[in-house]
Amino acid sequence: MPHTYKYPRPALTVDCVVFGFDEGALKILLIKRGLAPFKGRWALPGGFVRVDEEIDQAARRELEEEAGLRGVFLEQLYTFGAVRRDPRERVVSVAYYALVRQADMSPAAATDADEAEWFELTKVPSLAFDHAQILERALKRLRAKLRYEPIGFELLPAKFTLSQLQHLYEAVLGVGLDKRNFRKKILSFKLLTPLDETFSAGRQRPAQLFRFDTARYERLKNQGFHFEV
Amino acid sequence: MPHTYKYPRPALTVDCVVFGFDEGALKILLIKRGLAPFKGRWALPGGFVRVDEEIDQAARRELEEEAGLRGVFLEQLYTFGAVRRDPRERVVSVAYYALVRQADMSPAAATDADEAEWFELTKVPSLAFDHAQILERALKRLRAKLRYEPIGFELLPAKFTLSQLQHLYEAVLGVGLDKRNFRKKILSFKLLTPLDETFSAGRQRPAQLFRFDTARYERLKNQGFHFEV
Repeated sequence: MPHTYKYPRPALTVDCVVFGFDEGALKILLIKRGLAPFKGRWALPGGFVRVDEEIDQAARRELEEEAGLRGVFLEQLYTFGAVRRDPRERVVSVAYYALVRQADMSPAAATDADEAEWFELTKVPSLAFDHAQILERALKRLRAKLRYEPIGFELLPAKFTLSQLQHLYEAVLGVGLDKRNFRKKILSFKLLTPLDETFSAGRQRPAQLFRFDTARYERLKNQGFHFEV
Repeated sequence: MPHTYKYPRPALTVDCVVFGFDEGALKILLIKRGLAPFKGRWALPGGFVRVDEEIDQAARRELEEEAGLRGVFLEQLYTFGAVRRDPRERVVSVAYYALVRQADMSPAAATDADEAEWFELTKVPSLAFDHAQILERALKRLRAKLRYEPIGFELLPAKFTLSQLQHLYEAVLGVGLDKRNFRKKILSFKLLTPLDETFSAGRQRPAQLFRFDTARYERLKNQGFHFEV
């Protein structure tokens, strides 16, 4: 059944920049396009918003359909609407960014979509549409936000070592951090609960595992506390 | 000429939260609606995005048509798309916030639209649609951004006193600031150029006027400088 309007309307889509952290590197999830335009090129997961569907919900549906992802951290990023960003017709896209605990994911979930693949940020191929611009903005937001909100923990397994946390910060910010200062600062917030477990990799000395105390953070935040790394 | 699509499409609009600073108070510009729905209620300036028009451009056009405003600071805020936010049909709105130098504006420009009016933030009437939500998010963004980017100067006349600057920060943040600390911090950035002019109001001692050094700020920013108040 066709739908008719007095004035022409842009199509509305969502696109998601999905960040993961694995093997010490920041990664993003891309989908290989099966159809024109940009057939065979890599693109962000996304698709059309249904007329009776909340925009956030459309983003979550696409993440599940295209990448098997559920229950991830998801936040609206920016709306991209350049008149010629899609060669076919006017398409306005509400972009989101998502943070995924790659280490907690079952390998099946990660590969539900045939053509979904994680790329290291330094090895991202040429992207379809204006997706390189969307990625750039998402990265800028992630870097800024990592410093003043404890969102980094969304990328780590529920239990992590201080080294893993530091490596995450270093990978996202793209700079080396002083180990002593980093630990002192991050522990000073008293937001990390030490666990009765250790983690050892290879011949390294077993390292204490921690958990992020979300409840305490919410309490402190309501009292005016500002997280800052 | 009607326009027909295979699937139904939401309409796309822009809405603008326009902030001004006058007589020591933070204000926003509202338009009285002449048509249903919400006829006679106050609303944010805004309207439909044309299919061949950039979204930012649509926001600038609406600001000029509805409020006589040109060349103002304008930034995309967030996209609001709740399924029932407009009682008529699905309308997705890309919200912006604008900062206006009220003191520099000619009174004519400010009153081009018959039904445009500035309201003190504490006296904002009940708004149409979800505009109260949009205002709330804009205010949150303005408060956060004022602390780490020198956008406050967009709300002041080109020449201002340190008292005016402090009053602006106090009005936006909703807190009192210590005069000595504020001046010390703001002058430490060396971003304010003292002018050979003073300003006196009533019986007060004439106060030094300053100008914000945009060129120096851009230079410092490129060198990694972070503004923070």
